[in-house]
Amino acid sequence: MAYRGGEDGTGEAGTGPPPLLSPPPLHQGDTVAVVAPSGPPDPARLERGAGVLRELGLKVVFGEHVLARGDGPPSGHHGHLAASDADRAGDLQEAWCDPAVAAVVCARGGYGTTRLLGLLDWDRMAGAGPKTLLGSSDITALHLAIGARLGTAGCFGPMPAGETLAGDLGPEPLGLRHLEQALYGVPGPITGTHALVPGRVSAPLAGGNLTLLAALCGTPFAPRFAGRIVLLEDVQEAPYRIDRMLTQLIAAGAFDGAAGFALGSWVGCGDVLPVLAERLTPYGVPVLAGLAVGHGSPQHCVWLGGLGVIDTQSCSLTSLFRGSEEAM
Amino acid sequence: MAYRGGEDGTGEAGTGPPPLLSPPPLHQGDTVAVVAPSGPPDPARLERGAGVLRELGLKVVFGEHVLARGDGPPSGHHGHLAASDADRAGDLQEAWCDPAVAAVVCARGGYGTTRLLGLLDWDRMAGAGPKTLLGSSDITALHLAIGARLGTAGCFGPMPAGETLAGDLGPEPLGLRHLEQALYGVPGPITGTHALVPGRVSAPLAGGNLTLLAALCGTPFAPRFAGRIVLLEDVQEAPYRIDRMLTQLIAAGAFDGAAGFALGSWVGCGDVLPVLAERLTPYGVPVLAGLAVGHGSPQHCVWLGGLGVIDTQSCSLTSLFRGSEEAM
Repeated sequence: MAYRGGEDGTGEAGTGPPPLLSPPPLHQGDTVAVVAPSGPPDPARLERGAGVLRELGLKVVFGEHVLARGDGPPSGHHGHLAASDADRAGDLQEAWCDPAVAAVVCARGGYGTTRLLGLLDWDRMAGAGPKTLLGSSDITALHLAIGARLGTAGCFGPMPAGETLAGDLGPEPLGLRHLEQALYGVPGPITGTHALVPGRVSAPLAGGNLTLLAALCGTPFAPRFAGRIVLLEDVQEAPYRIDRMLTQLIAAGAFDGAAGFALGSWVGCGDVLPVLAERLTPYGVPVLAGLAVGHGSPQHCVWLGGLGVIDTQSCSLTSLFRGSEEAM
Repeated sequence: MAYRGGEDGTGEAGTGPPPLLSPPPLHQGDTVAVVAPSGPPDPARLERGAGVLRELGLKVVFGEHVLARGDGPPSGHHGHLAASDADRAGDLQEAWCDPAVAAVVCARGGYGTTRLLGLLDWDRMAGAGPKTLLGSSDITALHLAIGARLGTAGCFGPMPAGETLAGDLGPEPLGLRHLEQALYGVPGPITGTHALVPGRVSAPLAGGNLTLLAALCGTPFAPRFAGRIVLLEDVQEAPYRIDRMLTQLIAAGAFDGAAGFALGSWVGCGDVLPVLAERLTPYGVPVLAGLAVGHGSPQHCVWLGGLGVIDTQSCSLTSLFRGSEEAM
């Protein structure tokens, strides 16, 4: 198990990989399609979340099978999936390929996205041109696959049937403002709580939910983070499980050459920071922890595939999508 | 995601890989070394379990760091590990290379074995010749690595600080008798509850705990089951997690060419059989479910790397170690 950090020891990845292609920014009045590639969304929540998107000035349409299971109790052994694999993949692909749709918004996470990756017609989706995908948690797998197959950056952020946008108390305001910034322009910097390894680095952001990154090891969509800042977050996983997943990614060489680590929220993961520090600090690249990205509230956005800047002096992660020259 | 079953459709893997090397059988009076490559064993339990091994006629010695953490409450972020990686790996290696030790017995599972695989001196261990490793659950990773690097079969069965050998009520008698058979001779057939795909197949057994098999995907010890009967079992994993792990192994091609599936216990995994059936029956090879192997009670033994026979007519798995001609 070899620890190999970024190539240049300066903390600036001057010769790293280029960022992925930015999809066109959204504009007021654009149509977004809500699909459910993972678990079944709660109908009332989904409607509240769609209302939030409408208040942001977007027109909302729904994939045909978004509520295939959401209008009743989960049934059969597929109760954890919103609809059949074919229907979930079909909805996603149709939305992606529809020229009237400016962004594909995932209703919620849960589980099921890794089942779809082999069912999507990547050639057809590539023909549709770059487009914004919004989602997080289980959607990490889709971001990884769309980045690898289509070369397109995607927005890792709150989802319309999720707690922070569609909770009983209304949308959480900080995360909502950040989502608006991320979709229409440049999201503001996100402040972390502490640096595990100090430094400043600028490189494309990648990663997302740790469980999903580990679940793609060995598959055609196995993550590789050379020259990238690795975002990691998770929810309800005990420290020994986090340790096992990091151990897998390390042994698989996924972190070899990583430019830095941006650690998001670890809701319900116990005292996990020492495990993260032990496993990640040997790479010798900047590690910034305590970013409100992932699960929990507030929930900020980052552009996976877009350029990011970790600066442990300001304890911030700046996730750039376009207009990177101003923000740097 | 391609489903490719065993090459010959007869259900008999006539041209599959040979079984691994059988370690010499144990004899009354042999010395076994108890080590703790995973979690910290409870001292009282461990002593009870060691007593059970002594009653089987074995002399029991302990690795130096078996109780490094077991004599107090877990402390620090390594509370889930019995000792440091170096100490756990050192104990294991020393026991394996000690010519006075006939078998290396793992005290318990838990978590931590995947952290050791890169720390063991495989050349030195290969020089020590074949030897019995006894353990299950997290020890699956060690069985896989020892099979791959040393070519040696190992015994997947109950451990001395585990519930079935060291519970408050004394050892569970069926599992104890089966362990005795497995260590000294040929374990008797294990009866399953039903066939998901009927058939009869004879091939080397491989696999073990599903979580560990998934956690090795993408690593130098990634599982490959071509020509083998795949044993799968798990504990306390929700059906969607079982589904995610199977999906990973399928996408990684680990099951390509599998000769059959032997499904053990799924304690605390809910209604998981439909998920297993959906993911595994497309391989078109015999699938026998409901075997009391893995977690739960009774807990039978199988020889991983040894020849196994699934026969859905008798609803049995016969795990052969030596004397295969009689038992077939």
